[in-house]
Amino acid sequence: MLGVFGLTQAQAQQTVPTPPKMVPEMTEFWEPEVKVVTPGAGTGIAAPSDAIILFDGKDLSQWVSVKDPSAPAGWTVNKGVFTVKKGTGNIQTKQSFLDYQLHIEWQIPANITGKSQGRGNSGVFLSSIGGGDAGYELQVLDSYNNRTYANGQAGSIYKQFRPLVNSMRKPGEWNVYDVVFTAPRFKEDGTLFSPARVTVFHNGVLIQNNTQIKGPTQYIGIPDYNQPHGKGPIKLQDHGDPSEPISFRNIWIREL
Amino acid sequence: MLGVFGLTQAQAQQTVPTPPKMVPEMTEFWEPEVKVVTPGAGTGIAAPSDAIILFDGKDLSQWVSVKDPSAPAGWTVNKGVFTVKKGTGNIQTKQSFLDYQLHIEWQIPANITGKSQGRGNSGVFLSSIGGGDAGYELQVLDSYNNRTYANGQAGSIYKQFRPLVNSMRKPGEWNVYDVVFTAPRFKEDGTLFSPARVTVFHNGVLIQNNTQIKGPTQYIGIPDYNQPHGKGPIKLQDHGDPSEPISFRNIWIREL
Amino acid sequence: MLGVFGLTQAQAQQTVPTPPKMVPEMTEFWEPEVKVVTPGAGTGIAAPSDAIILFDGKDLSQWVSVKDPSAPAGWTVNKGVFTVKKGTGNIQTKQSFLDYQLHIEWQIPANITGKSQGRGNSGVFLSSIGGGDAGYELQVLDSYNNRTYANGQAGSIYKQFRPLVNSMRKPGEWNVYDVVFTAPRFKEDGTLFSPARVTVFHNGVLIQNNTQIKGPTQYIGIPDYNQPHGKGPIKLQDHGDPSEPISFRNIWIREL
Amino acid sequence: MLGVFGLTQAQAQQTVPTPPKMVPEMTEFWEPEVKVVTPGAGTGIAAPSDAIILFDGKDLSQWVSVKDPSAPAGWTVNKGVFTVKKGTGNIQTKQSFLDYQLHIEWQIPANITGKSQGRGNSGVFLSSIGGGDAGYELQVLDSYNNRTYANGQAGSIYKQFRPLVNSMRKPGEWNVYDVVFTAPRFKEDGTLFSPARVTVFHNGVLIQNNTQIKGPTQYIGIPDYNQPHGKGPIKLQDHGDPSEPISFRNIWIREL
Repeated sequence: MLGVFGLTQAQAQQTVPTPPKMVPEMTEFWEPEVKVVTPGAGTGIAAPSDAIILFDGKDLSQWVSVKDPSAPAGWTVNKGVFTVKKGTGNIQTKQSFLDYQLHIEWQIPANITGKSQGRGNSGVFLSSIGGGDAGYELQVLDSYNNRTYANGQAGSIYKQFRPLVNSMRKPGEWNVYDVVFTAPRFKEDGTLFSPARVTVFHNGVLIQNNTQIKGPTQYIGIPDYNQPHGKGPIKLQDHGDPSEPISFRNIWIREL
Repeated sequence: MLGVFGLTQAQAQQTVPTPPKMVPEMTEFWEPEVKVVTPGAGTGIAAPSDAIILFDGKDLSQWVSVKDPSAPAGWTVNKGVFTVKKGTGNIQTKQSFLDYQLHIEWQIPANITGKSQGRGNSGVFLSSIGGGDAGYELQVLDSYNNRTYANGQAGSIYKQFRPLVNSMRKPGEWNVYDVVFTAPRFKEDGTLFSPARVTVFHNGVLIQNNTQIKGPTQYIGIPDYNQPHGKGPIKLQDHGDPSEPISFRNIWIREL
Repeated sequence: MLGVFGLTQAQAQQTVPTPPKMVPEMTEFWEPEVKVVTPGAGTGIAAPSDAIILFDGKDLSQWVSVKDPSAPAGWTVNKGVFTVKKGTGNIQTKQSFLDYQLHIEWQIPANITGKSQGRGNSGVFLSSIGGGDAGYELQVLDSYNNRTYANGQAGSIYKQFRPLVNSMRKPGEWNVYDVVFTAPRFKEDGTLFSPARVTVFHNGVLIQNNTQIKGPTQYIGIPDYNQPHGKGPIKLQDHGDPSEPISFRNIWIREL
Repeated sequence: MLGVFGLTQAQAQQTVPTPPKMVPEMTEFWEPEVKVVTPGAGTGIAAPSDAIILFDGKDLSQWVSVKDPSAPAGWTVNKGVFTVKKGTGNIQTKQSFLDYQLHIEWQIPANITGKSQGRGNSGVFLSSIGGGDAGYELQVLDSYNNRTYANGQAGSIYKQFRPLVNSMRKPGEWNVYDVVFTAPRFKEDGTLFSPARVTVFHNGVLIQNNTQIKGPTQYIGIPDYNQPHGKGPIKLQDHGDPSEPISFRNIWIREL
């Protein structure tokens, strides 16, 4: 027999509570503060012969707009680097990847202002599994003398894992991420078989050691693997903050 | 120089935000509903020669009160089983364990009333790492035709992992948990080396398969391994609900 | 230019050493002896509602010959059990499985003779990945007062992992294996992504705890994952020994 | 009663077969050949502020002789590098380490001669757990146009795991290993709790990805964790080959 809303009694009985919405601060953990390490000089070893060059200083031909993957990436290329162009939105690689080694360099501008998350905010999504900010975010931020929640500073797996140490260089200097990413695997029924794992070096210093990622990044709430996927593009974030924009250069990747 | 609140300037600068308190429902996930399986008959294979018998039907000589570990366990022994005595509090084993195989049988009384978490609530803490309800809780509840949040029903790692299936027997019948627990390990500096892992069969049906526990159970908030520990006792919960009490029998353990 | 054997010079240069053949005894490790435990009574909890019954005491309709999968399994069914019929070869399930929970009971005949591997030898191949004896073998043997190499006794992952304890029952009594198997996963290029893992209880006693299998069983040599595969049937071994044959009963499986 | 050889009957019964000795070639696997990659230029990012400098170009004050740990390391220091001095034996760090990140540079001399294992052979023992060549060996060898067994070439975990690719530089150029090592952990009874794991980059290219080491390196036979241990020194090998000696420089380590 049909009851309220045209549901059968059995269906109506199936109405279950939905967890109340959390607020972002509930997954922002400041303590203990991450220990600061001063990295050594250099940007690492150049790309090997089997790397796919994702940016060689000339153009964004390997990248597209996330909003419209048929449109070119709208960020600015100048003097061998490219820079977030506020309001154009995130960009992502044309190609998709499963497991890989990635090298990427990024620079907080010398004249950065703001504090906490409002200072040089961007991100490297290790696998974009949808539009917008969906994916596994390795945080990009100015964490040089700029404290924020530990699981949101540069080198964190955003809102999940703090970096082992803070190995950030000064604004105006180039930072380097060397990443080894293993994509999650799913069972035929869509449930998780094995989580994504990531190892990251920040300016040559180990900051994530085969970390088991908890699920796609959630700005609000608790991450979970509820969306099976395979390969995904690498995505860079236009965070839209009211401060000077971040630049990138020398990006290469090797499929594993 | 002292500033506000008698803190030095350095101390005042160190004041950082504390995450707002969550509410319990934020970690209670009802969907999707766990599939029901009807378990077969029987309570399993009897204790092997190398098992430590934690309850043989006679007395609670292997158990003490959690509130006062120098006092005997105050629960009721009758006809080969023991039963929660409301208000006496949790009880725990005298002996502590690291990695182990555990067999434990438990019964929801036939005349149980209430619903959701208010129906036959107790728990097996796989390692008690403090007083009260601290530890890794394998949930005990009447989950026979009694829906609750999936990560809080019988066989869940409470508020962390739902059981793979719902293999619950009717009130008045005996349920069986067969458990393999691997304790977490910690580094010298107190940080986590490897998380606790648990495999559980409920009435002979696999419901947790080498599940990596996220940290000690949190009724409110997000679990984390912030308290290094070694061996711990097995603890049973007096949940204090206004319903008929739960009984236990035939408990044995093998150290691994 | 062609040189010896019609190979080009480049091909000839590519001739590389092949490892000398090992002998079986090189992977047979007797020490230390596995500790004996006397299991308790019983054969466990009956099949749940979601199990696939692979043998219900009546016929071998779920099984076929390994030599000729279009032919029925030639073993003998009598009084609710089936028995190896020497010379008919291995048998396997019609259906293939990936990850699963398996219950299987087996009996060494009371009048068994012989010693070491020549006494009640059979095996449960957890996933048959080819004909003959190819697959991941959980050893079946009379290990009651019959010492053999530890990684070849009952409950071993044959020639790889000894059981944690020896929980064998006497000839003429029924033994029980309860198994949780996770199949290996492979990358697109055929290399290993994650190894097979297995948990086994022998007569209710944990003997393999999420053991990472090294590769398909090798009677001679060192196992390796050089053959990517997905689902496989469960296979039982006709070892062909000159002694009384082994029987099986009550076999059920649940896909995970 | 004493029987043959003065053993009691019980002792005589305990005499068990010992596996026949293998020959070294049985664990030397040439096929398939490891794919060659040409690494990019550079030696990586300089030591961060929290690194322990194990060699700064001046002296071997952080090292001792393995044969006699009270004696100084007898290798030759010249022009900012140190070189194996044949016949003086292995050297090891004074300090012991558990889990760590290690950077080490090594050079095959330009005038190297010989082939296969007889060409620039040395090794980095990731944890020395005894004298001589005991430990977990990350192979050092001239693998530039010098084929040998894949699990014995530069970047292999010797006789266990081949490198993912061959990223070797020419003799006369400096090679770089960047290593993340997680030491094995043992249970109280001396059995293995978790194996050693290692990630290695060779000239900036990932060649070992959280590889689970099978046990201390065995030149002959099958490795196994039969010797519980904690921290160990880093050890470098004097392989004693009749060819030009290998040099090392710029060695630093960070405890994790």
